[in-house]
Amino acid sequence: MRNKQVLLASRPKGQVQESDFRLVESETQAPREGQVLARVLYLSLDPYMRGRMDDARSYAQPQPVGEVMVGGTVAEVVESKDPGLRKGDLVTGMGGWQQFHVADAKALRKIDVSLAPPSAYLGVLGMPGVTAWYGLMQIGKPKAGETVVVSAAAGAVGSVVGQLAKIAGCRAVGVAGGPAKCEHVVRDLGFDACIDYKSSSFKDDFKKATPDRIDVVFENVGGEVFDSALARMNAFGRVALCGLVAGYSGQDIALHNVRSLLVNRLLVQGFIVSEHLEIWPQALRELAGHVAAKRIRYRETVAEGLENAPRAFIGMLRGENLGKQVVKVA
Amino acid sequence: MRNKQVLLASRPKGQVQESDFRLVESETQAPREGQVLARVLYLSLDPYMRGRMDDARSYAQPQPVGEVMVGGTVAEVVESKDPGLRKGDLVTGMGGWQQFHVADAKALRKIDVSLAPPSAYLGVLGMPGVTAWYGLMQIGKPKAGETVVVSAAAGAVGSVVGQLAKIAGCRAVGVAGGPAKCEHVVRDLGFDACIDYKSSSFKDDFKKATPDRIDVVFENVGGEVFDSALARMNAFGRVALCGLVAGYSGQDIALHNVRSLLVNRLLVQGFIVSEHLEIWPQALRELAGHVAAKRIRYRETVAEGLENAPRAFIGMLRGENLGKQVVKVA
Repeated sequence: MRNKQVLLASRPKGQVQESDFRLVESETQAPREGQVLARVLYLSLDPYMRGRMDDARSYAQPQPVGEVMVGGTVAEVVESKDPGLRKGDLVTGMGGWQQFHVADAKALRKIDVSLAPPSAYLGVLGMPGVTAWYGLMQIGKPKAGETVVVSAAAGAVGSVVGQLAKIAGCRAVGVAGGPAKCEHVVRDLGFDACIDYKSSSFKDDFKKATPDRIDVVFENVGGEVFDSALARMNAFGRVALCGLVAGYSGQDIALHNVRSLLVNRLLVQGFIVSEHLEIWPQALRELAGHVAAKRIRYRETVAEGLENAPRAFIGMLRGENLGKQVVKVA
Repeated sequence: MRNKQVLLASRPKGQVQESDFRLVESETQAPREGQVLARVLYLSLDPYMRGRMDDARSYAQPQPVGEVMVGGTVAEVVESKDPGLRKGDLVTGMGGWQQFHVADAKALRKIDVSLAPPSAYLGVLGMPGVTAWYGLMQIGKPKAGETVVVSAAAGAVGSVVGQLAKIAGCRAVGVAGGPAKCEHVVRDLGFDACIDYKSSSFKDDFKKATPDRIDVVFENVGGEVFDSALARMNAFGRVALCGLVAGYSGQDIALHNVRSLLVNRLLVQGFIVSEHLEIWPQALRELAGHVAAKRIRYRETVAEGLENAPRAFIGMLRGENLGKQVVKVA
């Protein structure tokens, strides 16, 4: 069978361009013993991919130029050479930006579509959901009555952070770009407040939205947004540092309120959820319970067709998506 | 008896001036039941005092203008109204910048001059020593073979941090101002290397001194020194944030290598040792053992006479002292 694939064509210089990707076609490979061939239904687009596109020293190897872009997928098993998986099973894995992928069966996880639709396993019941859970619960350790601030609040991770904060009895304050997102965050997701970082009254709005200051920050953005949060911290505040999308294209994301780290005896912890596999079962169990009980709601932005993945990815980096950005591949 | 005192005359505008202090004389007060009157032998000068002189929101109340400057002291009991202390006993406490002080006996701690001379209880066997121990051992958690970097390495805290790091089997790298301090840090204190932040080759020197990069930072300074360390961190590095003297007069101490916090999954923890009283006994016991065995050496810079305290304090903020800065009051 023919397999469309999106390769990294060149490393971006600053902002990612569509020309940094290349769409090619090849033949699918046959699975070997212990492997399966799977048809990708949904591809996940995530901010971490931007980091991989650079050649900089980082926690993961850079995405090699000329190879299929890495990415999480939900796929349907087409052919199985492993007793644990059957044709028709739906599985999550790192299938990449392509229509078919061959993988070791043990690198895949079967999903239960009676709990949630397939694409949810790339969002609230996948890596973004567990990222939210880990950063908030294990680093932020919110106590009832505290104030939790999360940036990129309308995104796949941020939306879950705020709702988990509400469940924990906290005041949940989001930061997002533009009135439409802010309205969604408050009205649909139930945050107590959401501040538009693009507004000229951002600093004042931030102050008003955090009358008891801030105890926990879940940071996805960095730069001015992070700095503004640092200026409003309470003593013994915690910062779960999850992402710095404001600096993904080389922008200056300097922090100026460094004194707050000392004066307020803050804890800052950078983390990557894939290094904490031991908490995934608990996190996913709790998240599935919240989703089933409608305590956690989620939104998706769906791009149609693999060939539109680059454009959707660039849009996501610009913050054009609401909730989880996926690509419907088949 | 007459009691010379140094008051805060005015809040500093930028750099501290001698005119921000005022020397006055008053009468000593009589101790009440449960109190003692003590003659100050040594006054401790510490960077935290600079923070108190400002009116900014911080962890401690600002030093009130027109009142005696706060400060740690070693003093000799002159008159006791408490059964636990006798005339002639030597005690540490927060006597302030004055010749005599009256204090509740339970706020004082008797010292053992058979272990170390009185002034050591203001340094290696006092708050600075416990600060070094807490930040390094409880936050930095150094493992043998790791690299520990400490700024203000020739100071009261930094000198102990590096020596504790050596005892823990680490590579100890100091950052200090000028060749004389650096030579002292390496030759007298046994650090593996010391980098002069005033040198034009600072960045190169830093790189050469940390061939295996950095696992633990004990930060006393902030600004460029801190930023340079962040640029050299290993994954899962720890930063004990103890002070930011580079910003004490309002200087810009922005951090630019924020990405390192995320990419290297760093832990940063601001702390104040007085909030961790539970570890003081263990810390002091271990420090006393190291001092007795000459595994930890210390240096003092002694100013003579209370009236010279302001000048010595300003000099300390400029980094003119080697080791612990004290004032010999009597």
